[in-house]
Amino acid sequence: MRRTAFFISDGTGITAEALGNSLLAQFEKIHFERITVPYIDDLEKAASVVKRIDKAAELDGAKPLIFDTIVDSAIRAEVSKASGFMVDIFGTFLHPLEQELEASSSYSVGRSHSISNETNYERRINAVNFALDNDDGARTRYYDEADLILIGASRSGKTPTCLYLALHYGIKAANYPITEDDIHDQRLPAALRPHREKLFGLTIDPERLATIRNERRPNSRYSSDKQCRYEVEEIELMYRRERIPYLNTTAYSIEEISTRIMVATGIERKR
Amino acid sequence: MRRTAFFISDGTGITAEALGNSLLAQFEKIHFERITVPYIDDLEKAASVVKRIDKAAELDGAKPLIFDTIVDSAIRAEVSKASGFMVDIFGTFLHPLEQELEASSSYSVGRSHSISNETNYERRINAVNFALDNDDGARTRYYDEADLILIGASRSGKTPTCLYLALHYGIKAANYPITEDDIHDQRLPAALRPHREKLFGLTIDPERLATIRNERRPNSRYSSDKQCRYEVEEIELMYRRERIPYLNTTAYSIEEISTRIMVATGIERKR
Repeated sequence: MRRTAFFISDGTGITAEALGNSLLAQFEKIHFERITVPYIDDLEKAASVVKRIDKAAELDGAKPLIFDTIVDSAIRAEVSKASGFMVDIFGTFLHPLEQELEASSSYSVGRSHSISNETNYERRINAVNFALDNDDGARTRYYDEADLILIGASRSGKTPTCLYLALHYGIKAANYPITEDDIHDQRLPAALRPHREKLFGLTIDPERLATIRNERRPNSRYSSDKQCRYEVEEIELMYRRERIPYLNTTAYSIEEISTRIMVATGIERKR
Repeated sequence: MRRTAFFISDGTGITAEALGNSLLAQFEKIHFERITVPYIDDLEKAASVVKRIDKAAELDGAKPLIFDTIVDSAIRAEVSKASGFMVDIFGTFLHPLEQELEASSSYSVGRSHSISNETNYERRINAVNFALDNDDGARTRYYDEADLILIGASRSGKTPTCLYLALHYGIKAANYPITEDDIHDQRLPAALRPHREKLFGLTIDPERLATIRNERRPNSRYSSDKQCRYEVEEIELMYRRERIPYLNTTAYSIEEISTRIMVATGIERKR
């Protein structure tokens, strides 16, 4: 079975996508063709979307699903003319919220998606720059400024996680790779010792690590099963010995790794 | 006026946050204390959330708002015992969707948030690595592999945008800074010429650029009003002369810049 799902917004469409995908994920047996249509902020654009939806309806022989986060009720009314099944966020929840809050909403198009204030925007950009400048143990002298220092074996997911935390939450996260030399020392690397309370460890199943490393350097000692198993075992031992909180990233998405670290460390979102 | 808003999920909480924030943005005059509570995936955790909500209700003298994306109806029922006002995504939309799709949902906790398949995860990680390896014109010999090459003045927002596109959509985006030398040449830089169809330009208001540059290198020629004005003018001229599509990023968030580029170029989300 096949259905088309439209994610329609007057802004980026990110909220409509997130909501729609979380609902669609509950229907595993249906194949959904997903189409995101952002920036539908006037009646003319709405009318052209209606045409697209109607065309999909004809092709599929079934109503497309419409997940929309359009604030303006006139534009929403236009979209609702399509022969689709509408999951209408603002239409459903805004009025009850107004009653509960005893306030009228501003019905501002795209409001939630624009820069709410420059400080917030700059904090995120600065955090991205911090993550880039302090990636892969490149520098350690700015660790005083870090909110968090991720440690772990090479290719265990440190860099994407630092970037996600920076981009989304304005968190300054550095990362430091635990190398074989560090393992031999049987001690926490010297650069990390003054910042013990900021450390968080990542680990990963050795088989998965070997797969990832093989893409970068095929058939090397670095990517061998034996080496990966050795590093992971020793690094997990170090985490336990030094009482560093850690997470096995194997089964998780970047979003999950990031939010689980925030839960475990208590670091606050800075948006 | 002050109200507390809880974003509660059995997964990362990202969808509940996005949805809640887009609704709250419509009530400008109310100050919301926002609390995200992810990974509420059993009754015990739900009961502890109820206590937190009730405490906030007492403190505020008003019902907290609850935006939840909990799939399991028993856990949801537990949360609904709190003295809050519930905006209940799954409770509201899942049953109508089941009817429309003539299918029952799987009611799987956290489903939408986990790695749907490894290929998808790896594509995003590979895209992040591509963005990092091809940042700031560092290398140009892999431009054949790029989905997109962002160009623009130094500090016009290229790097965070490339990283966002990679992390979220698995898009391989390189970036190349347009320097004064390039401006003097009055030609598109040689490295870019074979990839004309992949180019997208960023521009920014000169005043804003000067502010951003001043943070990095205060009181330098690089960050002077005059220099910023000169570079921006010349680069916009280049875009028009070479017919490169471009976007002024000044008023936009990273999400908006990214999604607007995708609309303008027609590059597909690869999730």
